[in-house]
Parts: sequence; C-alpha cells; structure tokens
Amino acid sequence: MTPILTIALDAMGGDFGPPIILAGAINALQTHPNLHIIACGDAVQLTSICTELKPELASRITINHCQDVITMEDKPSFVLRHKKDASMRRAIELVKSGSADACVSAGNTGALFALSSIILRTLPGINRPALITSLPTQDKQPVWLLDLGANVSHDAETLFQNAVMGSVLVQHLTNNPHPRIALLNVGEENNKGNAQVKLADTLIAQTASLNYIGYIEGNDIFTAKADVIVTDGFTGNIALKTSEGIAKFLLSEIQHAAQSSWLHKLSAFIALPLFRRLLKKMKADQYNGASLIGLQGIVIKSHGNASANAVFHAIELAMQEVEQQVPTKIKTTIENILLE
Amino acid sequence: MTPILTIALDAMGGDFGPPIILAGAINALQTHPNLHIIACGDAVQLTSICTELKPELASRITINHCQDVITMEDKPSFVLRHKKDASMRRAIELVKSGSADACVSAGNTGALFALSSIILRTLPGINRPALITSLPTQDKQPVWLLDLGANVSHDAETLFQNAVMGSVLVQHLTNNPHPRIALLNVGEENNKGNAQVKLADTLIAQTASLNYIGYIEGNDIFTAKADVIVTDGFTGNIALKTSEGIAKFLLSEIQHAAQSSWLHKLSAFIALPLFRRLLKKMKADQYNGASLIGLQGIVIKSHGNASANAVFHAIELAMQEVEQQVPTKIKTTIENILLE
Repeated sequence: MTPILTIALDAMGGDFGPPIILAGAINALQTHPNLHIIACGDAVQLTSICTELKPELASRITINHCQDVITMEDKPSFVLRHKKDASMRRAIELVKSGSADACVSAGNTGALFALSSIILRTLPGINRPALITSLPTQDKQPVWLLDLGANVSHDAETLFQNAVMGSVLVQHLTNNPHPRIALLNVGEENNKGNAQVKLADTLIAQTASLNYIGYIEGNDIFTAKADVIVTDGFTGNIALKTSEGIAKFLLSEIQHAAQSSWLHKLSAFIALPLFRRLLKKMKADQYNGASLIGLQGIVIKSHGNASANAVFHAIELAMQEVEQQVPTKIKTTIENILLE
Repeated sequence: MTPILTIALDAMGGDFGPPIILAGAINALQTHPNLHIIACGDAVQLTSICTELKPELASRITINHCQDVITMEDKPSFVLRHKKDASMRRAIELVKSGSADACVSAGNTGALFALSSIILRTLPGINRPALITSLPTQDKQPVWLLDLGANVSHDAETLFQNAVMGSVLVQHLTNNPHPRIALLNVGEENNKGNAQVKLADTLIAQTASLNYIGYIEGNDIFTAKADVIVTDGFTGNIALKTSEGIAKFLLSEIQHAAQSSWLHKLSAFIALPLFRRLLKKMKADQYNGASLIGLQGIVIKSHGNASANAVFHAIELAMQEVEQQVPTKIKTTIENILLE
C-alpha cells in the first residue's frame, strides 16, 4: 500500500488567488489517491470552493484557516515581523511540526525564502538555500539551473554548495546516477571568469563524487551539454528572466510581423499552432515548480503567474521530493564530501 | 568638404578570414567617400584580394603587413608576450600613434581587451574599459547593454563608471540628450540585489547629469523601458549569450516541429519568411558592432562570426564614434561628475 503523503498548500499565493490554486490541488488529489492536502488560507473562501467536491476528495483536503495573506509587494522584513498568521507561513510551519511532508506556494519569493530559512533552517554544511528549476533543451532531457535568485552572494563556497545540492536533487528526481555538472561562466577556457568562479571551479573539480564537466557559457544553457548548471542567484535570476523576456519579445514580433502584410498575416495564421507549441516550451519554467533546496524540509515555489496546471506540477514535484527524501540525501552527501 | 576619416582594420580577425573582412571594408569604402582603411595583416593575402579593385577604391585602402595572427584560442597573456607583430596589435598601435582615428577587429575579444587597455590606456577616472552593444526591443529604438564581458569585476564603482560611459555613448550616437539609464537587478524594489548593486544604485541616483530610472529585471531588457542597461561584465555576458542560446534553441525547435507532421511541415514552409525575419532580428548583436569604451581611443569589436555586412556595420559604428568624438565626451563628462 502506498503511504499517505501530506502537502501543505499556501492557497492564497499567486496572482490569481484561491480558485486557481485549489483547482490545481484538486487535480492532484484526483491523480494521486495517496495525496492529502492541507490548504492554508481564508476558511470562508476555501470552504466555498470545496463544498462541491465529492466526499472522497473532500476527505483528503483539510482547510487550515489563516487571517493574513502575504502580498507580492510585502518586504520579507515586514512579513517576518507583522504577518505571523499568513497562509504561507502556516504552510511552512506545518512542515516544521511534521504535520506535512512538504509545502507549496505560488506567493512572494523573497518572503518564502526568508520564512523558510528562519522556520525550517538550512541543512548542516549549507549556508543558504538555493532555488532550482528545470528548463527545456534541444534534447529530450531538461537542464536544471540554480540558483535562480534565492541567494545573491557571489562567493565560491555558495557556488560549490549549489553544485552539490543540484547534483543530489537531479540524481534522485531524474534517476540519473551521474548528472553532468557545469559552472556558468563568460568563457570555457580556464583563464576566464572572476576570482570566485575560478575558486569554485577548483573546489568542484576536487570533489570526486561530482561528475563535473567544467565551464559552460550562456549560449549553451539550452543545448543539453550539462544536466545541472550552477551559478549564483544574481546571475541565475538574470539568465532565467532574460529567457522569459526573449519569449515575450518573440511573441510581440510575431504579432507585429503578422500585421505587416496580407502574406505575413496568412502565414502567421497557418503557423499559429507551431508558434504556440514553441512559446509553451519556452515558458516551461512557468509550468514547472522550482525547489528551494538546502533546507531541513521541502519547499516548492510555483510561479506567481501559475495556472492550475502549474500548481498541479508543483505539487507533483513536492511529492517526488518527499518520496526521494531529498533533504536527507543532500545532508548525507554534504557530510560525505566533508569527510573526503 | 567632409574630412578624411581613417580606420585601422584587423583584416585577419574573425572566423572567416581576410576575404570576408575586406568585403565588408570595400562596401564601407564604396558607401563613404571620405573613408580610408588601413588593412593590417598578411600582405600577400590582402594584396591578392585588393588587386581587382578600381583605382578610386584602391587609393583609399592601404595594406600594412603584419607577420602574426592572433587566434581565437590564444590567451591574452600569451598574446601580450609573444605576438608583437599581430594584425590586431598593429591596428590598435595605429590608433595610439594617431595614424588612424579608430580600429575595428572581429578577433579574439580577450586579446583585444588586453591589448587595447595596455596600448591605449583607459581615460582618467575609468578603471577598466567596458563592451557595449545595441539590441533590438519591442519598440523601434534599440537598447544598449553594457558591460558584455570586458570586465568581470562586480564592484559598485565599475557599475557606476559603466552607467556614465553608456549614457555618454548613447547620447551622442542616437541623438538622445537624456537616455534612460537602468541598473540590471533581480527585482525592481529597492531592497533587492546584492551590496554592490545597492551601492551602485545610490551612486548613480546621486549623479544629476544621469537620467536614472532605477532597477530593471532581465525580462524587461527587450521591452524598451530603458535606453541603456548597466550591469557587470559577468552578468552582461551571461545575459547576452543566453539570448543567443534562446535564438538557436528556437531555430532547432522550429526545425524539429516542422518534421513532426505534414501539417507542421507545410505551415513551417509557409511561415519561413516570418521565421527568418524573426531570427535575423534576434541575432542583431551579431550584425551590430560592439564598442570597447573607456579607452583613450576608439576600438570596435565585430562578432567573431561576422559576415561582410557585420564588418561593414562595425566600420560605420567606428566612423560615428570618431565623428562624435566619444572618448573626449566621456572624459569631459567624468571630469564634470567628479567636480559635481
């Protein structure tokens, strides 16, 4: 019998509010009979959405009332001091107390990072958590990029810890015993980069348990040369957002070109399914959840702009990490590396 | 009468060698009757290309023989020590001696950066030069991004100097008296970013002569919100190369999708002109030259992969900077800011 798996869900997070978040949760409950959800948020709103559920589903979703909601504009320092009864905070506290196996939120990333760090604490050997997601490549397998902005430090130790965490996560989520790890840099030659990157290169290369393939440049993120691409949170965030920016730019160019002549209009119309498929793949990061790793607990971030389907995928990612016991595996790997 | 303008050209640089570089130069000579070119490189190769030129054009191109060629793999330290008679070095020396008004190379960026810094030296008040180029946006006007990798330091002073240099260049090249300057960051709120970016934000905001609009995120690079986007060479290089990577990924996706069914094949065929137009625009950085600014002289970098047309554009960019006396303007602006 499959063991019961409980996910605490910040039902108030995200740009579209509880109806979309719960739609994703209900879809996950229908797909996974062993899943239980604790929906944190305003009980009145959440109950009104859940009243029409069939008893079998309703029995697997618990509403946990919270008075506060963290907005996208709230600063982490304000959230820590004044939003003690926020749905996001409650979801994390449920993981801390052991009432839930993992939590999922589509809310304010800065607040999620601050609350998770303070409530769950980082694993021994990890200074700060990192945010990681999978992106499409020219090949079938995706590439995993971290850090996406959880930690804007540039130091070599952070990069090294990111390499270890990324390797462990991808190893267990994709069933790949030796994921290829690459370090994002401004060139592939060993004289390229700043002091921090060069030191990180040495630290990672010295670690026998990592399958390190060296430096990789920005134009190779999507060419499937590496399974895990390591960088600091500042650069990773810029790389990810620049990719999103290009996708939007592309859409506006298509729309613009389509209006320029009848021939273009016709060809754009005919090629529309092709464009849609392309754009969907390019926006993949908005559909997949991102993991905040390095914590003593599992925290999944769904995109602020998340659709019900994106929330569904984030919940599935949380379930996978619970099944694979990712935090324990990171802890053990770090301990072994420190003993090397 | 338009004054004569002399450009020293590294005729050996770039992936395709002298025939392509000279084709671009000849096109520029045909377009600009006041242009003179000093083509630096192997005299035998260059003469054989130039023999068929009409006398009027031939009279405006001088061949300056050099024994060495800098390869794309040569490390800057090796180039500095052992390639004293390289075409790239000669082109820069011609600017230093006053024989040429500017130089253009499609060769090894690291070598160009090292040689230019040592031979021409930076302007007073500038620590290290920066590489800047224009990129397309959703609007008609382009956006200028710097630094693209000349200087991988992350410090606030570098970012501040980049802001000043970018502002002066764009002001004079695009005839925009108050270009909007933005600082690339992981968020728009003032609590976002690392210590260096926050300090740079304060420094730039304090400078009355800069039209500073604050932070900008990666997804807004192409939305025409700013005229100049300032970042360090590490992040700027990753952002630019990631954009190139997305363009390639897109092409491979179109090719892949087009093979998936007859309907897709047909629609891809019909939409081909639309795709081509799109890709051309997305690869704009490969067509425009990039300026290495902050030096006591004008140095233009053409893409390693440059076509004859790209070399032509790089020469035109060099001519524009000569006409606008960009180094003098940067020097004066820095002096005025230091007096503020």
